[in-house]
Order: sequence, then C-alpha cells, then structure tokens
Amino acid sequence: MYKAIITVRLKPSVLDPQGTAVKGSLHSLGYSDVEEVRIGKTMELWLNTADRVEAGKRVDAMCRQLLANPVIEDYEYRLEEGS
Amino acid sequence: MYKAIITVRLKPSVLDPQGTAVKGSLHSLGYSDVEEVRIGKTMELWLNTADRVEAGKRVDAMCRQLLANPVIEDYEYRLEEGS
Repeated sequence: MYKAIITVRLKPSVLDPQGTAVKGSLHSLGYSDVEEVRIGKTMELWLNTADRVEAGKRVDAMCRQLLANPVIEDYEYRLEEGS
Repeated sequence: MYKAIITVRLKPSVLDPQGTAVKGSLHSLGYSDVEEVRIGKTMELWLNTADRVEAGKRVDAMCRQLLANPVIEDYEYRLEEGS
C-alpha cells in the first residue's frame, strides 16, 4: 500500500481569482501584510500496490489524465509507504 | 518576506464526496488499485514581514479566522524565507 500526496497548482503565469478574493478578505480582516495568495489543490490517494516505481508511474499518469489540467496547472507528488 | 504554505484537509471523520467522485472517475479510467481519495486545499501566502515568529502567529490566526473551518477541517503550515 502506498499513499500518494499530490499537489496541483495554477501555473505562475495564470491568474488566480480565488486567491485574489482570499487576499481581499484577509486585508479586510486586518492582515494587510499579505502580498499575494495562490490557491491550489492537494490530493491524497491510497494505492493498493506493492511496487513503488509502478505506483509512481500510475500516479503520474492519473495526474496527466484526470487530476491536473496541464494547460494551466503544474503538479507534483510524493509517495509514502504503508500508511 | 516569508512564504507560508498552508494545507487544509477535511478531518478524517468527515465524508469527502469530491474525493469519492474522483475515485469513481479513476476507477472508470482503469486505475482500480486506488482505494481511497481525499481532497484538500493548499494555499501559498506571501507575507511582507521580517519576523518569523510573528509571521507564524499571523498565519495561524488567518487559518483559524478565515482559511480553514475548524469544525470539519484540519490545517498545517510551514514557512519559507525570502521567496
């Protein structure tokens, strides 16, 4: 069993209206030292496989096929064993 | 300047319908070894402050006040300097 922790972020060149809205809310609450906010997704997947290399390949394929939009998003992942 | 990387996840006891939907989609694509999927948020904040301890306190307060819902979500964060 492997756990994959995947982080999907908008590419730096892509506008992030959700992040801008959160920044505005933080400023309204008095946190005026917040200069920028970017929001992404984190996904935890539990994979029923014993082969680490195979698990990594499959997670990478899942990111490309479904979990991230490669046009506007970057992704990265790491694997943890047996949790 | 500090960068805070915040991860907000649903508590383990809280149902995650979005994760269940993604798991279903992955199974449809042939990734039947995916046992569970949990989806959370990751936020990157740039803070215009020079004091690491103060930055940590402010990020923690922001999480409690706005960025996470403490009833159903857990949060964690780490700080990186000068990026």
